Amino acid sequence: MTRIIVGGCNGKMGREVASCAAQRDDCMIVGGIDINPEEKHPFPVFAKPADINVDVDVIVDFSNPALLSSLLQYAQIHKTPLVLCTTGYNGAQVEALKRVSAEVPVFYSGNMSLGVNLLIELSKMAAKALGSGFDIEIIEQHHNQKIDAPSGTALMIADGISSVLKENTRYVYDRHSQRKKRDPSEIGIHSVRGGTIVGEHEVIFAGNQEVITLSHSAQSKGIFAAGAVNAAVYLTDKPAGLYNMSDLLKREASS
Amino acid sequence: MTRIIVGGCNGKMGREVASCAAQRDDCMIVGGIDINPEEKHPFPVFAKPADINVDVDVIVDFSNPALLSSLLQYAQIHKTPLVLCTTGYNGAQVEALKRVSAEVPVFYSGNMSLGVNLLIELSKMAAKALGSGFDIEIIEQHHNQKIDAPSGTALMIADGISSVLKENTRYVYDRHSQRKKRDPSEIGIHSVRGGTIVGEHEVIFAGNQEVITLSHSAQSKGIFAAGAVNAAVYLTDKPAGLYNMSDLLKREASS
Amino acid sequence: MTRIIVGGCNGKMGREVASCAAQRDDCMIVGGIDINPEEKHPFPVFAKPADINVDVDVIVDFSNPALLSSLLQYAQIHKTPLVLCTTGYNGAQVEALKRVSAEVPVFYSGNMSLGVNLLIELSKMAAKALGSGFDIEIIEQHHNQKIDAPSGTALMIADGISSVLKENTRYVYDRHSQRKKRDPSEIGIHSVRGGTIVGEHEVIFAGNQEVITLSHSAQSKGIFAAGAVNAAVYLTDKPAGLYNMSDLLKREASS
Amino acid sequence: MTRIIVGGCNGKMGREVASCAAQRDDCMIVGGIDINPEEKHPFPVFAKPADINVDVDVIVDFSNPALLSSLLQYAQIHKTPLVLCTTGYNGAQVEALKRVSAEVPVFYSGNMSLGVNLLIELSKMAAKALGSGFDIEIIEQHHNQKIDAPSGTALMIADGISSVLKENTRYVYDRHSQRKKRDPSEIGIHSVRGGTIVGEHEVIFAGNQEVITLSHSAQSKGIFAAGAVNAAVYLTDKPAGLYNMSDLLKREASS
Repeated sequence: MTRIIVGGCNGKMGREVASCAAQRDDCMIVGGIDINPEEKHPFPVFAKPADINVDVDVIVDFSNPALLSSLLQYAQIHKTPLVLCTTGYNGAQVEALKRVSAEVPVFYSGNMSLGVNLLIELSKMAAKALGSGFDIEIIEQHHNQKIDAPSGTALMIADGISSVLKENTRYVYDRHSQRKKRDPSEIGIHSVRGGTIVGEHEVIFAGNQEVITLSHSAQSKGIFAAGAVNAAVYLTDKPAGLYNMSDLLKREASS
Repeated sequence: MTRIIVGGCNGKMGREVASCAAQRDDCMIVGGIDINPEEKHPFPVFAKPADINVDVDVIVDFSNPALLSSLLQYAQIHKTPLVLCTTGYNGAQVEALKRVSAEVPVFYSGNMSLGVNLLIELSKMAAKALGSGFDIEIIEQHHNQKIDAPSGTALMIADGISSVLKENTRYVYDRHSQRKKRDPSEIGIHSVRGGTIVGEHEVIFAGNQEVITLSHSAQSKGIFAAGAVNAAVYLTDKPAGLYNMSDLLKREASS
Repeated sequence: MTRIIVGGCNGKMGREVASCAAQRDDCMIVGGIDINPEEKHPFPVFAKPADINVDVDVIVDFSNPALLSSLLQYAQIHKTPLVLCTTGYNGAQVEALKRVSAEVPVFYSGNMSLGVNLLIELSKMAAKALGSGFDIEIIEQHHNQKIDAPSGTALMIADGISSVLKENTRYVYDRHSQRKKRDPSEIGIHSVRGGTIVGEHEVIFAGNQEVITLSHSAQSKGIFAAGAVNAAVYLTDKPAGLYNMSDLLKREASS
Repeated sequence: MTRIIVGGCNGKMGREVASCAAQRDDCMIVGGIDINPEEKHPFPVFAKPADINVDVDVIVDFSNPALLSSLLQYAQIHKTPLVLCTTGYNGAQVEALKRVSAEVPVFYSGNMSLGVNLLIELSKMAAKALGSGFDIEIIEQHHNQKIDAPSGTALMIADGISSVLKENTRYVYDRHSQRKKRDPSEIGIHSVRGGTIVGEHEVIFAGNQEVITLSHSAQSKGIFAAGAVNAAVYLTDKPAGLYNMSDLLKREASS
């Protein structure tokens, strides 16, 4: 039974983590961390890591980058594994968490969904196996309130694919302003926005007379919480080191 | 039995028309028109419309804009209906064919596929019925040799939708260079290019918790020939006038 | 401002109606009906229609068939329009609600989603326009806890299409046990079950070298509540009669 | 430059192989085998393998099972690699070709498309990585003249997935005759038939709040010829052994 403390427990994702853990029998939430510890939860809430006074196996953090240094400090002192799901760390922070991972297990991934990470791995495999005769295009769809485009996940997919191709790639976001044939080095990235779409990612490999398409569809942000809880349970018995979703996927595949 | 003469019979689309007509029992090819009349066909080929010496019910033209004036002249003299499938007419030519349609039936459509035109009609209906709570996006996919983007069909769909909406619309081709929420007036148009894809068009209506998608997939350019032959048979007993695929669709729907 | 009373307000769909109405400025919930009126809501809850003591413009019911007779009685006495979203009425109950609709406006639809009903209308149009050269197949996808197959909506689509075709149709659910070509009269209906899929319906029209696909995807059951609230607002100023989603769609299309 | 002899050169697939090889610069067709050797080709045609009188590096066979024994005999005598694309071999024939593969390279695959075989490999990987929380369903679509269902490829996918799962699986083709929840051991297989669809295969992994979909779409049967020519070139410098598309995919992935 993995005992989890959830950072940012008052936030939307923190609540999803608590709700997800409550449905499993291999883990439980034993506490939360939030700057506003007055809010009611079925577990004690601490204003900062240093206040934690319960036994804990792993901390899952969905708060914000400002909490990182106190989390790292706590982890170093107590040898507590960390699952860091917060986005927006700067370069120095990423360096810091890598340093701490020499002493305790640290899980850090740009996207916590098992399915999205599998999509990335499968896309890399497909790109390698199909070789240069296939054109690669990515379509992502999100709700109409999202302000950035393309999605970070679409870029993770494109970067993953580029890393396994022998040729250089060039990301193309707009074709209407030109009159020319597609260059084989292009990876087209298309950002559809509309309604309340949670998140769709589609990777197209278009070859001679055949097309292979790999896609992921998210119904709710709960998938990120589920991935974080998976990571927490996975991390319990691991040695110090930096882990990400690829490691978790490999474990699943070989178990 | 509709007797058809096919303009541009040596070209790829002319051959498709002949092949399509050969498979039907309500029409037959009785001749072709081509600047090179030496090439072998199972029907006589004439170098220009004035040379036609067989009985003909309708001319289907897939040649090029230069042939238009001689076709119109022939149609006026002999009261022969025309199905004009050639693209690239200039404004004066469109005016000329409209004038001639006062005397003989003229069928003229930006896209000769029944399915594509149905997609446009359905998209207009959906846009009207769903109203302002749904965001509209169009994704088109074509082969990697196509030099223009978006496809003419994607623009026909967007224009059709815009014509039935009360609010003004704005076509958006690229979102990666900005950081803002989607404006309700946007119609996103995305041009995917890859492999040998013949032509895919998808219209997305994304609302609150639901998405409606209408799409058309073409396997080969034969669908344009089939549409042209349909139009030829349809035109046989029609009075003078300008016809397009919407008229043909209404006939099909009410027959 | 349409004043709505929601029947079955303690249930999942009743809560969705309240939540949906709260986000609009053209209607408000002024009360609920539920056999357990003790539960807390931001509006008064009545144990049965006869107990209602507030002014109401329309009642939206998502309870169960047992409540119908008392609802109809209340509607007749007070001339209060009804939006009946409860499923499972027997034949006698459907007759009863039709009788009452001679005196008050009654809205009754097998599926309350605007999008699903639009899908049905578009499918009928497509079937009519495309005629006999296109084969029709329906794929529906739902979560792994659903016990019936095919979905009621898939059957509504198939029945709607059949009603506009000149030829008889035959629904086919399984092809693995036979060895023969598809008969043109078939409508294939395929029931995919998996995970937590809320509801996907796809209608395929496959012709010669082209395919048209119309689809609807539901993210949550909230779309049925939204349709019900739309219907309630629509019904406010209507004369007595029996209404369904087709009427609402026509209104939207012509407004 | 791989010198290829194509078995069944008068047939549809034989012609596709010749056409495909003509477009490449790493191979050439140096002869054909066909029971009717009178038909014209840009290469000599032999009535049977024993008649071959040109230098050949590999034989690609798209004829029929009856030719197998003479092909195997020729291969043994001349140490000529074989790419066997003919379907319908009986058990004794499969045993025979395996025996011969101890002496010469023999390539034998149930489906010669690189893309389809990649789809199978990716589906196996996904099934392994996702584990038991995801429900697996397969949808295949083919033209209305196909008499068997499900497609052989759909079964290859289902068998491939079953081979990597720890739990037993059960294929389900029809759900309309029952009233029960989906069992986790089910793999639903759905056969859509319509129009001229060449071949679509879609593998759905539906989990908690997320769906992963892997799909392959064939535009023409040319993809099987392309796969066969790829296999022929691949086989040129290989030692004796039995090869299939998985070997070719691994080569592509690691090259």
